[in-house]
Amino acid sequence: MPLGEFDLIARYFSRPPSPPAADLASRIAFGNGDDCALLQPAPGMQLAVSTDMLVEGRHFLSTVAPALLGHKALAVNLSDLAACGARPYAYTLALALPRVDEAWLAGFAEGLHALADAHGISLVGGDTTAGPLTLSITVFGEVPTGQALMRHGARPGDQLWVSHASPGGLGDARLTLEVFRGTLNLPGEAFATVRQALERPQPRVALGLALRGVARSAIDLSDGLLGDLDHVLQRSAAAAGGSAEGFGAVIHAPALPCSATLATLPARHRLQYQLTGGDDYELLFSAPPEAAAEVQAAAQASRTAVRRIGEIVEPPGVRVLGADGQLLDAPWQAFDHFRPPGP
Amino acid sequence: MPLGEFDLIARYFSRPPSPPAADLASRIAFGNGDDCALLQPAPGMQLAVSTDMLVEGRHFLSTVAPALLGHKALAVNLSDLAACGARPYAYTLALALPRVDEAWLAGFAEGLHALADAHGISLVGGDTTAGPLTLSITVFGEVPTGQALMRHGARPGDQLWVSHASPGGLGDARLTLEVFRGTLNLPGEAFATVRQALERPQPRVALGLALRGVARSAIDLSDGLLGDLDHVLQRSAAAAGGSAEGFGAVIHAPALPCSATLATLPARHRLQYQLTGGDDYELLFSAPPEAAAEVQAAAQASRTAVRRIGEIVEPPGVRVLGADGQLLDAPWQAFDHFRPPGP
Repeated sequence: MPLGEFDLIARYFSRPPSPPAADLASRIAFGNGDDCALLQPAPGMQLAVSTDMLVEGRHFLSTVAPALLGHKALAVNLSDLAACGARPYAYTLALALPRVDEAWLAGFAEGLHALADAHGISLVGGDTTAGPLTLSITVFGEVPTGQALMRHGARPGDQLWVSHASPGGLGDARLTLEVFRGTLNLPGEAFATVRQALERPQPRVALGLALRGVARSAIDLSDGLLGDLDHVLQRSAAAAGGSAEGFGAVIHAPALPCSATLATLPARHRLQYQLTGGDDYELLFSAPPEAAAEVQAAAQASRTAVRRIGEIVEPPGVRVLGADGQLLDAPWQAFDHFRPPGP
Repeated sequence: MPLGEFDLIARYFSRPPSPPAADLASRIAFGNGDDCALLQPAPGMQLAVSTDMLVEGRHFLSTVAPALLGHKALAVNLSDLAACGARPYAYTLALALPRVDEAWLAGFAEGLHALADAHGISLVGGDTTAGPLTLSITVFGEVPTGQALMRHGARPGDQLWVSHASPGGLGDARLTLEVFRGTLNLPGEAFATVRQALERPQPRVALGLALRGVARSAIDLSDGLLGDLDHVLQRSAAAAGGSAEGFGAVIHAPALPCSATLATLPARHRLQYQLTGGDDYELLFSAPPEAAAEVQAAAQASRTAVRRIGEIVEPPGVRVLGADGQLLDAPWQAFDHFRPPGP
């Protein structure tokens, strides 16, 4: 007899709170199994909430290892909490599955729970149904009231920073995707390194926490640097009463984190992947120049590599500069789920 | 040029907090547009959270009017808050769409926002992507710490109650589904009445609030009365240290709310729909006999019809009794998304 919906929830998704969450357990009054989960943020805390949906064939290939998918589905949501400087403490999962495949579910649950345990958080509720493979996770984090990092806090004069894997850089996820698509070839060892960027992104939670009170704005890179930066420039100008076209930015192309593998591509190609590749799940943040030492200290404390890549400026538009300061042509659009991909 | 993802979010899903939410606006520090929404439950309040996923062809037909779908997607989630006695105050939406269809989106948003406005709640975040039509909503509500209605609170001797539309009854949603499937025929006027049950379920939020401190257990009916009651019986026995097989219940079939249209069906057929139809979104709750007057007062205060349909008993198993107290045969299973439907 096939596993039914309730057996399935019980077998793969019901578990006691993960051990590192002992200090948080008192703030989850009732998880998984009732009509609602009950959450109790500590006094003086706001609850940061983010939701993402992943669809087979769009956000992941049907051939992905289920444990990697479990990891990534939660990682992309934790990345949003990181960008707010929130400490993760719980999540819900809604899952549509074409069929009950126990090997797949066991793998998926393993990847999901491993990342949840690494961050000390619990699955507190959810829904499973039959349907085309689709995942929607909602994560909850805590942040002291008024201390969340926001997209709208950037100001002209701020330095612009980005986190990165070490070794690794922006655009590696896109590079991997192109190899999977067959438009690029890489030697086996080089591919084994860069594919981590696509398949096992590491949400920069510790860096986000360390940047509270240091960074003036932050966003996580999911749609590509240029597109995500544009959100920061638009919202920050609106919040500061600046130009309706947004603030601007200067980006120093040679400062963009670049993996050894990406560095083997032609310069133009490389720049496109770094600026618009998408799926990076790094933090892009700004801070006033006088906070540069604090930024470096936050990076060190959180064991996360960061790189200063440019500045926020008053005039609208983003200018990308080369090694000798010349203006580079960077005509690429941000990734958009409803627009066909550009050249 | 087709609408892109960000235009789409801006056009259909960004709006100021709805007017009735003025008292709640201070508790939503930042909605829709940053990496996270920030929620601030009032002091002494727990946050009740529930998530549901709806898939085309499984939870709704491809021909459903988009405004009805917008209503229902939020209604089924609000029903979970109602079952906890929580006051709704915000929600997030994750939406996969096969294409950008502006007429569809406008209709969907209209139905969604109308119900949100009726409950004074705001859309605080979400995600849109291309994919097979799938909706996942997560709702947030507030409940004073320790006062949430739970599934595990029922005790032997409790009276069992159910809410219902008036006119209307349990099983009308399933009746409507069978008409859509072509397995049943109904006269036009009768059909126009019962289809409201399937297409415009009314979450019993006001009743849930009024039952705080009155009901001992509550659950919302989504998978059919027998299946949902079983959750209550299992969890309540576990919480009270009762039988590993759960508590039991006696249900008086003639007391089950029954619409005039459902009453035209053969008795056996009618009983099956009432007990296992699913998609009712009514509250099933228990209260000690001495609280019966308070239950009636809560129903009156919330302008919601309720009916006493049976009792919780110590011995495991559910017995369904007929008009003269004879035991009826009720062998039906609860609806399960991963099991083929029964006879």
